[in-house]
Amino acid sequence: MQQSFFPVDPTAVHLSDPVFTARIESCHNTTIPSSVAKCRETGRIDSFRLAWREGMPKRPHIFWDSDFAKVLEGMALALAQNPGDKTLADELDSYVDLVISAQQPDGYLNTYFTQVEPDKRWSNIFEWHELYCAGHLMEAAVAHFRATGSRKFLDALCRYADCIATVFGTEPGKLHGYPGHEEIELALCKLADATGEKKYLDLAKYFIDERGKKPNFFLEEAERNKTWLDESGLRNRQAHIPVREQSDAVGHSVRALYLYIGMTDVAMRTGDASLLDACRKLFESVAEKRMYLIGGCGSTAIGEAFTTDYDLPNDTAYAESCASMAFAQFARRMADATGEAQYADAMELSLYNGCLSGISLEGDRFFYANMLTVDDASFLHGHVTAERQPWFDCSCCPTSYCRFLPQLGGFAWSQRSGELRCNIPAAGTVSCNGMQIRVTGGYPYNGNATFECLSSGTFTLSIRIPAWCRNWSAKLNGKTVEQQPENGYLSLSREWKAGDKLELALELAIDVVRANPRVTADAGKIALMHGPLVYALESIDNGPGVNALIVPADQTFSLGEAKGLAGVPAIIGEAWRETDVSNGELYFRNRKPAREKVRITAIPYALWQNRGKSELATWLRSN
Amino acid sequence: MQQSFFPVDPTAVHLSDPVFTARIESCHNTTIPSSVAKCRETGRIDSFRLAWREGMPKRPHIFWDSDFAKVLEGMALALAQNPGDKTLADELDSYVDLVISAQQPDGYLNTYFTQVEPDKRWSNIFEWHELYCAGHLMEAAVAHFRATGSRKFLDALCRYADCIATVFGTEPGKLHGYPGHEEIELALCKLADATGEKKYLDLAKYFIDERGKKPNFFLEEAERNKTWLDESGLRNRQAHIPVREQSDAVGHSVRALYLYIGMTDVAMRTGDASLLDACRKLFESVAEKRMYLIGGCGSTAIGEAFTTDYDLPNDTAYAESCASMAFAQFARRMADATGEAQYADAMELSLYNGCLSGISLEGDRFFYANMLTVDDASFLHGHVTAERQPWFDCSCCPTSYCRFLPQLGGFAWSQRSGELRCNIPAAGTVSCNGMQIRVTGGYPYNGNATFECLSSGTFTLSIRIPAWCRNWSAKLNGKTVEQQPENGYLSLSREWKAGDKLELALELAIDVVRANPRVTADAGKIALMHGPLVYALESIDNGPGVNALIVPADQTFSLGEAKGLAGVPAIIGEAWRETDVSNGELYFRNRKPAREKVRITAIPYALWQNRGKSELATWLRSN
Repeated sequence: MQQSFFPVDPTAVHLSDPVFTARIESCHNTTIPSSVAKCRETGRIDSFRLAWREGMPKRPHIFWDSDFAKVLEGMALALAQNPGDKTLADELDSYVDLVISAQQPDGYLNTYFTQVEPDKRWSNIFEWHELYCAGHLMEAAVAHFRATGSRKFLDALCRYADCIATVFGTEPGKLHGYPGHEEIELALCKLADATGEKKYLDLAKYFIDERGKKPNFFLEEAERNKTWLDESGLRNRQAHIPVREQSDAVGHSVRALYLYIGMTDVAMRTGDASLLDACRKLFESVAEKRMYLIGGCGSTAIGEAFTTDYDLPNDTAYAESCASMAFAQFARRMADATGEAQYADAMELSLYNGCLSGISLEGDRFFYANMLTVDDASFLHGHVTAERQPWFDCSCCPTSYCRFLPQLGGFAWSQRSGELRCNIPAAGTVSCNGMQIRVTGGYPYNGNATFECLSSGTFTLSIRIPAWCRNWSAKLNGKTVEQQPENGYLSLSREWKAGDKLELALELAIDVVRANPRVTADAGKIALMHGPLVYALESIDNGPGVNALIVPADQTFSLGEAKGLAGVPAIIGEAWRETDVSNGELYFRNRKPAREKVRITAIPYALWQNRGKSELATWLRSN
Repeated sequence: MQQSFFPVDPTAVHLSDPVFTARIESCHNTTIPSSVAKCRETGRIDSFRLAWREGMPKRPHIFWDSDFAKVLEGMALALAQNPGDKTLADELDSYVDLVISAQQPDGYLNTYFTQVEPDKRWSNIFEWHELYCAGHLMEAAVAHFRATGSRKFLDALCRYADCIATVFGTEPGKLHGYPGHEEIELALCKLADATGEKKYLDLAKYFIDERGKKPNFFLEEAERNKTWLDESGLRNRQAHIPVREQSDAVGHSVRALYLYIGMTDVAMRTGDASLLDACRKLFESVAEKRMYLIGGCGSTAIGEAFTTDYDLPNDTAYAESCASMAFAQFARRMADATGEAQYADAMELSLYNGCLSGISLEGDRFFYANMLTVDDASFLHGHVTAERQPWFDCSCCPTSYCRFLPQLGGFAWSQRSGELRCNIPAAGTVSCNGMQIRVTGGYPYNGNATFECLSSGTFTLSIRIPAWCRNWSAKLNGKTVEQQPENGYLSLSREWKAGDKLELALELAIDVVRANPRVTADAGKIALMHGPLVYALESIDNGPGVNALIVPADQTFSLGEAKGLAGVPAIIGEAWRETDVSNGELYFRNRKPAREKVRITAIPYALWQNRGKSELATWLRSN
């Protein structure tokens, strides 16, 4: 196993690029405050006062703690990047005190079970979300510790983790269980990193090693609870076979991806090659067979789940926002663990498309599901909406953005001893282990990025050359770099001097993308991409019926602008629009529509539905 | 309101056509016996012995009684058509005695509640299936009475209906409720017809009139039961507004269509014009906006439900077999109630395609869901399978076929005083009210049908001229008929003599069908039809990748044969097959596949998956 990379702390990256920067700011200014307000309004904050009694309104729910924990994590991350925000610091501090006040003498910390069903602790691990909520609180506590240096939240969660370790484990008398909604595995790794306590890594490893073993814990639990559970239920929770034997990504997509992240984290920290090998296979299953072009995962709303290889319907796509964010994190871990750029390519795809599509530019409205085809006929139900919503009853996605967007800068860079690695050449500065770099340029809207060294020293600067890039060049202090990339990274090891400049030029072409012929939903269709950005047609620019437009593949597309999206390159081209010869009939025989030529304007998929209600076409009918 | 038509008793029709006849026979010989065996094996028959106790295997289920009732109805219908089948008669008789033996002193007859939850009678009308099971038992009892003349089963169900009438109604002290799964409304109309008792029609009318009124019964019930129910739950059960205000077909498709049938039945029997008007609107909503080309209903597995106008995805199509059978019955009622052929056109479409596709030619395997696109990527889950199954845990579809197929002949003909009306010119004989006709010909495989009068008398013979038929002609005793159809029927009123011959020639062309442009799923696609039959491509005839084949619309298709389907016209044509340039990648840029010309063979959709596992393409990628 090669030496792993690790993320650069997001507080060490300060972006000034045209895409991420505005999202980080809107998160700080809008997403976090509005999510705090929603948590207050819905009772999620008051739940920690432990004052709820049966018959009162706002009955706590089993996943509420996780939502508020994610907002707290986001507050801590935002505070770390904006240390002068005293209001934020004070607010966070008071919430942390509130959360800690809900901890029970034995370390247990869950407001649902403490208030609503105190006798049901740890009795339905499959369905209820105790370990999941615990994991998110741990992540919040670690972020709080890193942002403030205060150990109070961290120590509280260590006590909770210790309490959990008395309940779960291989020892007789303990539950041989593991989470029904994975997440705590990756959180325990963070807790181990923050505290230096190996026992938390051991507990994470236990949860991963035990999962899916026979006799199956969940089946035994279901028998105890007289609930019905079968193989497909186990698959939905990735508990049908031990994780090292799993090679197809199955079940609830967010649960699956959180598990895979935890597996990668444990593998990286323990040098467990068989575990990393399973992660490789599972990643391949997702990225090469079960992922939408936008980096979205989980094709069906039924169980919010992965389905089968190449089943990627556009109209009924679920592609949950949380799953995109989870996939980006999984890809990021894999890039760091293996050093291979293919994983960073996938991470970038998901970040710029499926992740950012889930939240409005203003930062206050969200998609839970990210369809690729939307029109008047779209079947909207539950979390599946054609317009972003301010909140959901199950509001995992909005609160995920609170903690995800502040980390965007951290995705751009990785590091290991003596090496700084650029995954995404977004403009900004990074400083890490004495190495300091400033990047300028307009990436991803254009492919030019200049890396200027702000410090001197001997280290390796490696820069990803994306797989989608057909032509690239680099000049170091004006001189062409002849070196070729290895594993997708151009790695320059030298004594860097402050003022050294590396000018990178990545060719960003407008590409016509096709899907594997086994993806029936995309047969006869093309998609348009410009570098890492997937483009799409909205009816706002193109009139109604965007999914019926015929876009010839063999034309010369050009860059232009779309109204209301100044500064964002649009793709301009031509298409055929068919006349409606249906006479209003649902089906009709032997009448062929005529065609007229029209101009089309495509915008980045992630930016759709930011200018009002609109139809959407991502995969375009072609010839 | 014009004078309604009524079905010709299916025992009065004896078919010898190339499609229905074999299905009726396989039902008698295979579907019914194998369903009886399954009912025995799973405990559905023994449940009527009332010997089950907690802890025993084969715990009765809330819908079990309905399954066995449907099989009994099928047995009675088959017996009526095969009165010499002594074994069937004896078996049926003993089962009827068994069922009657489970009736309680107060008339109540439900084996689940009697054995498993005796204190829960009528306590959850929304979710449990008491009234639904009662309705199917009533239908079985009526069929038994008509087949045997014995009143024992009928009288038992009258007692149960009387018992139900003491529980439900507008009077104080009664439940102001109505079924959570509609069906009893249409059954009560049959009971009223068989007994001449208006009180059963009144009870049916009560259930229909009360439905969806405010205050909402289901919401009140949910509050009593402390269960969660919202507007979308009410819509799933068509209980969100009173039925006369409903104009969009919503919710669980089988429930919806059973309701609409009951509404039509009540409207026909009471002359209720506002109710029939609602039926017209609901029919239009289904047939013109929410129905698959095969006559399948219910686009989503989520709630087994109708979705939105023009949302008709082919890969995730649910199109439950029971819904097709229900739609055919609804269309049949509407044709009879209004005399308009448009309804019979829709009935025929559903019969020959979506209804017959749900059962194998052998009669022993079933689709629950009828997808229009099937390949290796198909997402199979629960009842959604790519191959027909011998049974399902929730086995409504197999048992529906037991009672549906024996009625096929009855669909072909309607009657009213002095008029015999042919909806489908399938070969066979019909005799009704002294009128007797023999039809010869190969319909629907060809369009020639000769009607020969076997009796003499003055009456009207009316024959549907299908909307899909562009050219037709008729000769009466060799002389061209100049008369034109009215409301889609050619009606010849005269003194018929035995031996009179009417020769009908309907032009059956191979038609290229397109969908309304608002059906995004079918944009750029065509379907092939031959008369009323929808055709489809299987990989068995065309090799893998049938959904990616490009079938030019402007070619001359011809008729031929497909292997293993002798006597069935296949459609032969040409298509383009694309080369795979994916290199195994899920998505790829700027590579265009080449094309080669191939011959294609399409078979009737209803016959797919009768020659082994196969891919399926119904809507074909075109140019």
